[in-house]
Amino acid sequence: MSATTQAKTEESTVDTQTLEHLDAWWRAANYLAVGQIYLKDNPLMREPLRIEHIKPRLLGHWGTSPGLNLIYTHLNHQIKTRDLNMIYLAGPGHGGPAVLANVWLEGSYSEHFPQVSRDEAGMRALFRRFSTPGGIPSHVSVPTPGSIHEGGELGYVLTHAFGAVFDNPDLIAAAVVGDGEAETGPLEGSWKGIRFLNPKRDGAVLPIFHLNGYKIASASVMARQSDETLTHYFKGHGYSPRFVEGDDPMQVHRDMHDTLSKALEDIREIQRQAREQGSQEMPEWPVIVMRTPKGWTGPDRVDGVPIAGSYHSHQVPLGGLRDNPEHLKLLEEWFKSYRPEELFDDQGRPRSDITDQAPEGERRMGSNPHANGGRLRQPLTLRDWSDYGVSVDDSNRGREMTSSTERLGQFMRDIYQDNPHSFRLFCPDETNSNKLGAVFEVSDRCMMSPVNEEDEDISPDGRVMEVLSEHNCHGWLEGYVLTGRHGLFASYEAFATIVDSMAMQHAKWLEHAREVSWREPIPSMNYLLTSTCWRNDHNGFSHQGPGFIDNLLNKQPEVVRIYMPPDANCLLSVADHCFRSTDYLNAIVIDKHPQLQYLSVEEAREHCAQGASTWHWACNERDDQEDPDIVMACAGDIATQETLAAVDLLRHYMPELSVRMVNVVDLMSLPPREAHSHGMSQQRFVELFTVGKPVLFAFHGYPGVVHQLLHGRSSSERFHVRGYQEEGTTTTPFDMVVLNRMSRIHLALDALRYAPGHLKNAVGIIDKLEGLLEQHHAWIREHFEDMPDITEWRWSKGENPLKDA
Amino acid sequence: MSATTQAKTEESTVDTQTLEHLDAWWRAANYLAVGQIYLKDNPLMREPLRIEHIKPRLLGHWGTSPGLNLIYTHLNHQIKTRDLNMIYLAGPGHGGPAVLANVWLEGSYSEHFPQVSRDEAGMRALFRRFSTPGGIPSHVSVPTPGSIHEGGELGYVLTHAFGAVFDNPDLIAAAVVGDGEAETGPLEGSWKGIRFLNPKRDGAVLPIFHLNGYKIASASVMARQSDETLTHYFKGHGYSPRFVEGDDPMQVHRDMHDTLSKALEDIREIQRQAREQGSQEMPEWPVIVMRTPKGWTGPDRVDGVPIAGSYHSHQVPLGGLRDNPEHLKLLEEWFKSYRPEELFDDQGRPRSDITDQAPEGERRMGSNPHANGGRLRQPLTLRDWSDYGVSVDDSNRGREMTSSTERLGQFMRDIYQDNPHSFRLFCPDETNSNKLGAVFEVSDRCMMSPVNEEDEDISPDGRVMEVLSEHNCHGWLEGYVLTGRHGLFASYEAFATIVDSMAMQHAKWLEHAREVSWREPIPSMNYLLTSTCWRNDHNGFSHQGPGFIDNLLNKQPEVVRIYMPPDANCLLSVADHCFRSTDYLNAIVIDKHPQLQYLSVEEAREHCAQGASTWHWACNERDDQEDPDIVMACAGDIATQETLAAVDLLRHYMPELSVRMVNVVDLMSLPPREAHSHGMSQQRFVELFTVGKPVLFAFHGYPGVVHQLLHGRSSSERFHVRGYQEEGTTTTPFDMVVLNRMSRIHLALDALRYAPGHLKNAVGIIDKLEGLLEQHHAWIREHFEDMPDITEWRWSKGENPLKDA
Repeated sequence: MSATTQAKTEESTVDTQTLEHLDAWWRAANYLAVGQIYLKDNPLMREPLRIEHIKPRLLGHWGTSPGLNLIYTHLNHQIKTRDLNMIYLAGPGHGGPAVLANVWLEGSYSEHFPQVSRDEAGMRALFRRFSTPGGIPSHVSVPTPGSIHEGGELGYVLTHAFGAVFDNPDLIAAAVVGDGEAETGPLEGSWKGIRFLNPKRDGAVLPIFHLNGYKIASASVMARQSDETLTHYFKGHGYSPRFVEGDDPMQVHRDMHDTLSKALEDIREIQRQAREQGSQEMPEWPVIVMRTPKGWTGPDRVDGVPIAGSYHSHQVPLGGLRDNPEHLKLLEEWFKSYRPEELFDDQGRPRSDITDQAPEGERRMGSNPHANGGRLRQPLTLRDWSDYGVSVDDSNRGREMTSSTERLGQFMRDIYQDNPHSFRLFCPDETNSNKLGAVFEVSDRCMMSPVNEEDEDISPDGRVMEVLSEHNCHGWLEGYVLTGRHGLFASYEAFATIVDSMAMQHAKWLEHAREVSWREPIPSMNYLLTSTCWRNDHNGFSHQGPGFIDNLLNKQPEVVRIYMPPDANCLLSVADHCFRSTDYLNAIVIDKHPQLQYLSVEEAREHCAQGASTWHWACNERDDQEDPDIVMACAGDIATQETLAAVDLLRHYMPELSVRMVNVVDLMSLPPREAHSHGMSQQRFVELFTVGKPVLFAFHGYPGVVHQLLHGRSSSERFHVRGYQEEGTTTTPFDMVVLNRMSRIHLALDALRYAPGHLKNAVGIIDKLEGLLEQHHAWIREHFEDMPDITEWRWSKGENPLKDA
Repeated sequence: MSATTQAKTEESTVDTQTLEHLDAWWRAANYLAVGQIYLKDNPLMREPLRIEHIKPRLLGHWGTSPGLNLIYTHLNHQIKTRDLNMIYLAGPGHGGPAVLANVWLEGSYSEHFPQVSRDEAGMRALFRRFSTPGGIPSHVSVPTPGSIHEGGELGYVLTHAFGAVFDNPDLIAAAVVGDGEAETGPLEGSWKGIRFLNPKRDGAVLPIFHLNGYKIASASVMARQSDETLTHYFKGHGYSPRFVEGDDPMQVHRDMHDTLSKALEDIREIQRQAREQGSQEMPEWPVIVMRTPKGWTGPDRVDGVPIAGSYHSHQVPLGGLRDNPEHLKLLEEWFKSYRPEELFDDQGRPRSDITDQAPEGERRMGSNPHANGGRLRQPLTLRDWSDYGVSVDDSNRGREMTSSTERLGQFMRDIYQDNPHSFRLFCPDETNSNKLGAVFEVSDRCMMSPVNEEDEDISPDGRVMEVLSEHNCHGWLEGYVLTGRHGLFASYEAFATIVDSMAMQHAKWLEHAREVSWREPIPSMNYLLTSTCWRNDHNGFSHQGPGFIDNLLNKQPEVVRIYMPPDANCLLSVADHCFRSTDYLNAIVIDKHPQLQYLSVEEAREHCAQGASTWHWACNERDDQEDPDIVMACAGDIATQETLAAVDLLRHYMPELSVRMVNVVDLMSLPPREAHSHGMSQQRFVELFTVGKPVLFAFHGYPGVVHQLLHGRSSSERFHVRGYQEEGTTTTPFDMVVLNRMSRIHLALDALRYAPGHLKNAVGIIDKLEGLLEQHHAWIREHFEDMPDITEWRWSKGENPLKDA
């Protein structure tokens, strides 16, 4: 026992009866956790335990459960005593039985699932549905009332907790961190959340670091550190650590009660100082370090093998019940050790000295509306996006350069302005780089650390969230939307893949939530993928990777949307749509650099609504034939630019070739409607792409994406896709499209190759185009000398597509 | 200045001349760094600087360079003084100019690139090639001599450093950690490397934490912490921190010299105690915290804006040279401030008091063979994999269950035994769970923390690397193979996506290395993806995600191999192949649970060599027609099992249907040979899949993968792919295949649907099969009650495929 704990024990003022009540709740929760793992019948142990009461297949995680139960028990007491607005995030989410036990005890479960009543029948139903086919998952998950944190992949509990309390001044997120997950990089990187948490306007995260010593099969790194080392660790992260340690329940109850009381008082004091006294100091937030045995209160040893206090208690500690009456006996003793007759009445209802401990109504953590954030969701106040648009008409179409993301930045500036408590941008130190800096006109970057005189746009009051950690950015936004607020995660395209698995897990959450009737729709996760592969010439090969969308594509189509706006007006239209949507992962891909602008506000609105359309102004279709010789399709800004330039080249050099130009802004318009609700009708598909003409498709990302999207469309072999082929280095923008064979020259050459019957007239132009490519390669060999004007193309309707050609 | 630093300064014994020499090297390196960013001519500033000397496009990162230069300078001195075997990992790898400057100064660069000599012409060539098209990337990267760490995505420098020194007792990896990357989760999670570093048999990592205060556009979190907080932070991570701080070069030189000397002495003392005195204590390894200004020695202010010491120095601090003669003047002053005439002789060669400071030969960090690990690579000693094989013949084919990964564990146990210094398994606490536990017969898990009496298979001497961090596992293995050793990263399939981006970056490294002639081939990165989506019934939806291979597929085909062995003998054959290979990312996908075994050792050898083949014993082809009615293809263990069971069903109920069964073990055999070197010939493709018959393809992962692989094969629409469709929960193995419509029943029904001309005879069987499905759903509704025998299928050649059907 640490000195701190000892001192506190002596001062404790909590009375014995309270401790006994707490212990009763804890025993009840432990009993229910074990019941879920083992029992299909005899839930109250009224009969001697027989093998037919046992489930045929034993699944679940016991090891972490008693600790999770202990914490829940004590938090309930504090909520009730102090009237707290609190949610519970179980980092060790494998302990599903624990959280389910508590929400059943407090009555939340039965309100969400009336068929699982708070009595013997309901208890049996809870046990039976746990971890059985057609039942509920063994982890804390979407159908667990009060949860915003799936207990699967590890490492994100603190990011979700911080996201939940940003702009929720009244809320406290109690976040249990397991010593297993504490080894992950994302978790270690997430302690720094307090550096971005402003006690004046944000709520509080109370981390409870549960060291039970073991992971699935081995000791955990952190559990083997001394209290002294852990004290350094947390002070180094800016926290004030407090220790609760032991294996004597009543002593631990007392210490936990006192430590928790003190921590919550400290949180209130921190908030008071910030809110009433205007303190801008970085506070030392409390963290509770709890060392209790893994599988505590379970069997000590089985067949000579240590269980409680060992990794052997990780999952189901007592097996082989069918063949081993001794084990069945041990299990019965284990159940009875909780004295169920003291905990539940004749009807199997928890006794009143237990239920009286639960907070009431929405104060119960299983019923807190923040944990079903859709209930609190308010639509964003959005101005008309066209106010930020670019003026485009035939006089300047494709001839003037504007940074599209800069316009989005202006749109977001006003979203910040109009939604001061419910919108945030999350970005790894790249807001300016991504040309979204207009937001700094109305909000700084948030930083609680000391601010220097020469700092720009940094202050504790800032609400733009910049931290060089994609994991934190993503996790914070998840927590923010799961509690009903709105935001955008802007990332360098290549580095969005750092959070591939986080996006996958959030997609799974949304997929699952669609099946849970009481989960209200939450705002979508919005991704802006910018600084894309085509224009990361400056940063080179490591920054060229458009694979994040490949990862999204595999998720259930109901939850995924991918947009590739070609210009500013389309970007704004798409962003407006995404900000209004719910329950999706919306990925928007567009570069940040100044780029040509093609569509007016009205045209963009129409184009984005359609998802894909023919750009008639860009076509060179012949009136005398119904279908063009070739369809030049494209998706993505650079792909669009190169396609238009190729059309220009072809119009100039081979005007008799009939060319249609189709732009795709919503990738999900490509699959058949059976495959995705955004899929265009077959009629529309034929209108755009004809029945059988060749289609040359220039694509922003890996070409396989388009093939995958077209699966199920007839004769998809006529689609020839060009895209990023994993070629790159530090080079010029134009060399990037050449390296990946998607340059205007390559596209024009390919069009001639695929358009039937034109090759023999095309010899001259082919020579010319190949000469241009050779010129480019020669220029590259010379490093920057005598750069030809080839890259300075503007839309010219074929009049003069290449100055020197 | 901290108290620590002050104390050390007073005691310093380093003489002034040494400090002046160090400063000269540093100035030379800074000069060369600035030169690379700006100059295409006049490299020695012999003429007044004119605009035509300036590159047309200014790219590069200045801000971090002076710090990287300072560290390199001082490490060189230490290497020379102490005859150290050291490599340099630049976490802030954007500072490519810095590392390039130093390796040019020490002569390594010219030895790797003879056309870039160590004289004026070479200096000009170095400047010109830096960050220009056709030149070299602006980051530390593959063509940077001495590098094993790409300067792109941030966060992995310590994992690479630890991986490099495992089993390299003599090696010291100096790892510069930037204060930007220090914010990432993976970096924060990687300090714990010392908990797994045994000074007796491993080398040392010397982290140098460079706090220059700013990231690209904002203050860094860590730089704003006090020395006191940072001291806690590092003590909490188990280190002994030492501070070097200031902006007076000579003072910083002195402090850096003294601090580095002390740190290196401490490292040697730690190693001596472990090696000579057998100490098993966890040592406090040194870490150096260096606070110096960002962009130090660059212009102080430009147009009133602060540059040195601010984020404004991040990239190119002086722009607009063409339009602003004042800026050009400032740039010239900046160059001259380094007094180049003192540093380089008439021929532009570094003067001897500079070159004399460089270590010699392979002691130079740019020439250290560990940083070109292929030079040190020794093939693994591998026993005959068939010794671990399963005995299979017609008597037990498809009828007996064995865990395949258990056999791989036995194979690896002996690899550990036979290669005690050059093979390691990296796994997030799941070695036993993944059934690879046989390795513990010969090696423990490594842990330097105190070991408890009841711990199993844990000791400081262990060489099995378990840490609950996919990032550490992956990064350590990268460092290990980049320095020429061998290993395997075993992961739960779903959680491999946590390191999607690390795999992507390593793939890019290998892609690039193929083009750099002096990079010798390194051992492959081997992945075992197990605990797969089909059998994570226990853990539920969050653990069901086969998307890691989707991510690999997009990489250049030269570096990617994906294998789906259906049984133990195929797994062993494939693993043996992977362990012998170089320069690939090899992903092997197979479940850990006991599974049916199909092929004998000889059959498996042949099958894996082919990549895909017809399993004649499983076919029910009719002699009277050349082609079968349908080809039932499969890849992956569960897909194979379900396909065989479906063939069995069809054989029993509709023996007249001619069915071929094809198994694919090497996914890369599917694409055309033009697309991948493993691609089978068109003739072979037709032999297996016919010219035009329907193919029903049961696939382990997302179906899109197969479509993507088949792209370029003719008439690919006749391939109907079933696979993981993102459906799952905590349920039974059989329910998983039902949910995803890949069950034997679905496959049999689909076969009847696609095989032309058989439907009208099939009404009876269809009714039967649909009845079975209905029975399954009813059973699921009842939770485990009355479980039918349907899942206990064994290969039966159609005699009795379903007991109750």
